[in-house]
Amino acid sequence: MGRWEPDSRGRLQEAALTLFAQRGFDQTTAAQIAEVAGLTERTFFRHFADKREVLFGGSALLGERIVAGVAGAPPAASPLDAVAEGVDAAAAMLGEGRRDLARTRQTVIASNPELREREFTKLADYSAAVAAVLRERGVDEPRATMAADAGMTVFRWALQRWANDSDDGPDLATVARTSMAELRALT
Amino acid sequence: MGRWEPDSRGRLQEAALTLFAQRGFDQTTAAQIAEVAGLTERTFFRHFADKREVLFGGSALLGERIVAGVAGAPPAASPLDAVAEGVDAAAAMLGEGRRDLARTRQTVIASNPELREREFTKLADYSAAVAAVLRERGVDEPRATMAADAGMTVFRWALQRWANDSDDGPDLATVARTSMAELRALT
Repeated sequence: MGRWEPDSRGRLQEAALTLFAQRGFDQTTAAQIAEVAGLTERTFFRHFADKREVLFGGSALLGERIVAGVAGAPPAASPLDAVAEGVDAAAAMLGEGRRDLARTRQTVIASNPELREREFTKLADYSAAVAAVLRERGVDEPRATMAADAGMTVFRWALQRWANDSDDGPDLATVARTSMAELRALT
Repeated sequence: MGRWEPDSRGRLQEAALTLFAQRGFDQTTAAQIAEVAGLTERTFFRHFADKREVLFGGSALLGERIVAGVAGAPPAASPLDAVAEGVDAAAAMLGEGRRDLARTRQTVIASNPELREREFTKLADYSAAVAAVLRERGVDEPRATMAADAGMTVFRWALQRWANDSDDGPDLATVARTSMAELRALT
């Protein structure tokens, strides 16, 4: 990069989420995001392939973390206990981010059918990947898919609750563990 | 209608699903569907607003059945037991349809990202409606959302298992009840 740009990626993300929430995702351009961030459009495209990637850029890495968490569970762990390790890994990764930005991201996604559908598809992809790891661990179907789906549902609940709580509320890892316990209690 | 057309709707559905599976959803036109069914394009549009409706036409009614099932559960039923009544109602409605057509429908949806995302959105809509009914029944959040999501996940599992089993396999209502029991055992 030609000049020193402290946390230009973070500034672009924050500007993008603010604009998406104010004007709508479809009505926001990369040029507008760059302008609000005080950066050039060229800088935007050095960080993101398109404006969608601001919302979904970390998805592949998140999927890897979840799978690694499940794969690293003790061999004797039950399917749901193994999945809980994957959820913990995901919570550790996303819990490092700012809660207010996570909240704005959810609002933006909820208000746009295309984004909402994409978010569901991502969760379904994670679930399929987790089920595959469980099968490798010797878990039969349909239990592998059931445990994976249940885990991703818990993860989604936890993310929503954490994002919509105040900044001094429990951290994402804690909310995720509480949610998993509530699932167990529900049945 | 001008002339007698025995089960033209059913013939159009079967022709549509066959073509979607063979050529892909995007590559199939209403005119082709009508031709394979031995009917006119005008007849197609008397039954369906567009080709998408062949796949998702019953969604609103299904949502109503699920909600009615939950609302009609005994007052003392637990949240998950109430949701199980909604799943039973859905299974009763879809279980009347042909298993081979349900299987083809799933294959078509699974192979098209847009359709797959739409299917997830439908399930999320049912889940939101079920959670609302549970709250009316006095169930607090997050338990209402959790029970609703778990129920819709069980419903999706059951539908997949039923559709992919042979015609002499257990009916959808039985598969749904088995799946709900397996969810309970998982945790």
